[in-house]
Amino acid sequence: MPEEFRDEVLSRRWFLTATAGAAGAAIASTASAETLADVPDRGPGADLSAHSERSRFAKLDRIPESTPGKRNIDPSDAINSKTPHQKLVGNITPTDLHYERSHSGVPDIDPSQHRLLIHGMVGRPLVFSVDDLKRMPSVTRIVFIECTGNGWENWKKADPDLTVQNTHGLVSTNEWTGVPLKFLVDLVAKDKGANWMLAEGGDGAGVDRSIPLTDEIMEEAFVAYGQNGEPLRPAHGFPMRLLMPGFEGNLNIKWLRRLKFGAAPWMTRWETARYTQLLADGKARQFQFRMETNSVITQPSGMMQIQPGYNRISGLAWSGHGKIAKVEISTDGAKTWKQAQLTLPLLSKAQVRFQMDWDWDGKPTKIVSRSTDEKGNVQPDRASFIAAMGTNALFHYNAQQTWSIDEAGRVRNVLA
Amino acid sequence: MPEEFRDEVLSRRWFLTATAGAAGAAIASTASAETLADVPDRGPGADLSAHSERSRFAKLDRIPESTPGKRNIDPSDAINSKTPHQKLVGNITPTDLHYERSHSGVPDIDPSQHRLLIHGMVGRPLVFSVDDLKRMPSVTRIVFIECTGNGWENWKKADPDLTVQNTHGLVSTNEWTGVPLKFLVDLVAKDKGANWMLAEGGDGAGVDRSIPLTDEIMEEAFVAYGQNGEPLRPAHGFPMRLLMPGFEGNLNIKWLRRLKFGAAPWMTRWETARYTQLLADGKARQFQFRMETNSVITQPSGMMQIQPGYNRISGLAWSGHGKIAKVEISTDGAKTWKQAQLTLPLLSKAQVRFQMDWDWDGKPTKIVSRSTDEKGNVQPDRASFIAAMGTNALFHYNAQQTWSIDEAGRVRNVLA
Repeated sequence: MPEEFRDEVLSRRWFLTATAGAAGAAIASTASAETLADVPDRGPGADLSAHSERSRFAKLDRIPESTPGKRNIDPSDAINSKTPHQKLVGNITPTDLHYERSHSGVPDIDPSQHRLLIHGMVGRPLVFSVDDLKRMPSVTRIVFIECTGNGWENWKKADPDLTVQNTHGLVSTNEWTGVPLKFLVDLVAKDKGANWMLAEGGDGAGVDRSIPLTDEIMEEAFVAYGQNGEPLRPAHGFPMRLLMPGFEGNLNIKWLRRLKFGAAPWMTRWETARYTQLLADGKARQFQFRMETNSVITQPSGMMQIQPGYNRISGLAWSGHGKIAKVEISTDGAKTWKQAQLTLPLLSKAQVRFQMDWDWDGKPTKIVSRSTDEKGNVQPDRASFIAAMGTNALFHYNAQQTWSIDEAGRVRNVLA
Repeated sequence: MPEEFRDEVLSRRWFLTATAGAAGAAIASTASAETLADVPDRGPGADLSAHSERSRFAKLDRIPESTPGKRNIDPSDAINSKTPHQKLVGNITPTDLHYERSHSGVPDIDPSQHRLLIHGMVGRPLVFSVDDLKRMPSVTRIVFIECTGNGWENWKKADPDLTVQNTHGLVSTNEWTGVPLKFLVDLVAKDKGANWMLAEGGDGAGVDRSIPLTDEIMEEAFVAYGQNGEPLRPAHGFPMRLLMPGFEGNLNIKWLRRLKFGAAPWMTRWETARYTQLLADGKARQFQFRMETNSVITQPSGMMQIQPGYNRISGLAWSGHGKIAKVEISTDGAKTWKQAQLTLPLLSKAQVRFQMDWDWDGKPTKIVSRSTDEKGNVQPDRASFIAAMGTNALFHYNAQQTWSIDEAGRVRNVLA
């Protein structure tokens, strides 16, 4: 049996037992049907086309937002657009629904005119076109990218009417293809003493960040030109972006136009004024690059309504440290925990779908998930997270997400 | 170092050596550039939106076709629409470019009305809605689907003007999510003696196929409702289809409306008149389910033009038997072979991207790839394939694909 299938055998036994009695009828729309009279008739078909578009019955939209926690419908004010995890399945995010975060909108770049400058402390500064990169050896990897602000809606308070799209819509997983950073570093003959790299984007804001060239980053970072098999979408950096598996989304510089090597960080506006963390003691934390161990239940989640009896709990877990080792789920407000099933094979720094069976007794309760990664990092509960980080900061929120369920089956966002 | 990155270390050394001399200048557009004057200026951006659309500079279309080998622009005659592999990267096919093959067009199904009947030799016949399936345990798996007619353009003759989209555009790889067949089989309490299953589609043609319930199929088949994270696209079976990893595309019944269990095959029109193979000796082969070990070079490929010096050869390999074990490439018309790099981790019954460096001396030659899977199956050369199968059949063509390159660098389709 391929490993992908090992994870649901136990569940199947459980499901059969749980649905063997009177509640079992609920597992199918109609019991004891025998003929095709129970199934709608066949119908005519539309012509084949150059593209397979979505069904008109499948409504899948992101939500453009302006300020944190405040939904807004004026796209000219929007700073991000969030993935609708409550409507998605599997591990991979649809390309056009990968979350989007921009500081000055989406530039319309002609790839034949675009260039990448690599210079600074190097023996041979070079300028590359998109075609230059496409001729080089490439890597292809499924990884998540997460905005460092993902989850900030729940840092200070909990709006009960938020969906998981509102609370956790700033993380997505795609397959990315591009040229390894170490390959480019060899081409330009980087100086041994150049332990930092400045990456700058070609958008109006010119987002630029200083990146330390650790062994991990030298091994894993790449300049991507492909996304789920096709050229990057403009919102995701067309024609090229930096890919930094496991690290803050804003380091994955889009519309990449230069990499500069040097001996120290450049202290750009983005890393002094913007992406720093004001801690409880009044000090600020700079360069908190890695995204932490995280998870969220997407089904059932905020603003849904469930029925008593058999329910399937499903969600996504991820860690910037590597692979997820386990996900636990509590259906009694974090008093007791059960281990969920994970989708195999596990990939490093990619979102993984988890699942668990649950027989809801119809009484009010709270459900919550908790992930542990292969390095032993455990997703903290909210009280521990706040005790460590205070309430002045905005970024790297990875506390456990709790959904309350009332006697009517209404699922709502709560702090814990 | 994660295994995904191990495959390109050797290549990097080779590239640096190959480009160290005069030809090295060709690896970048501009040598010795130092400033941002060499890079286009930053520009304003468009508003954020509900969907990230493609760049207007990224032209990616499938080709709707009518009869084999004859391209046609009247969609009402089209029987398939092919994936443009020559423009894609990585392993996963963009959702809207997954190949499409229909026998009576694409039905427009309301998922709230759709039902799946499971009956025949079972203890408890049942009818399921889409929501019923979504509440059950699910599997998520990246696998290829391939039309049994993929490659038939080159069976009898070779049109030199075909692209790889024309010759191999009827295979694609997506992430699929759905309910394991064995789970449904347990729910309806299938009789022990029911070793065959009839799967029927809800399109106008009502495509139906008999499927033997081998251990492998019982372990791996599933009823899919998700594709690359979202609901199936209508062209790919919305709201549900059968997923049969490694087996003929037409067995992956789209718009699935019933599964019937029985003791023997039903001998439907599709398996007696259509999907049988007329062999050289005049006998017909029926029920040739599994797709064979295959590969094709997509870069460079038909109708492209290359330059002397450094070139990167890239392509896709796949096998219905399991994982690809190795891919070899010949750049001298199948006289000598070198092993290509594979993208890791390898997945069973999924397309995998392979790559190799090549320093073309500018002389006319032929390039060809040959895959071997984990069961030891080797993709045959065309002469061996024809010797075994004759020229009367239409399906399961998996002979090695040869591209000729003339002194001007023009890449063309040839038989060998």
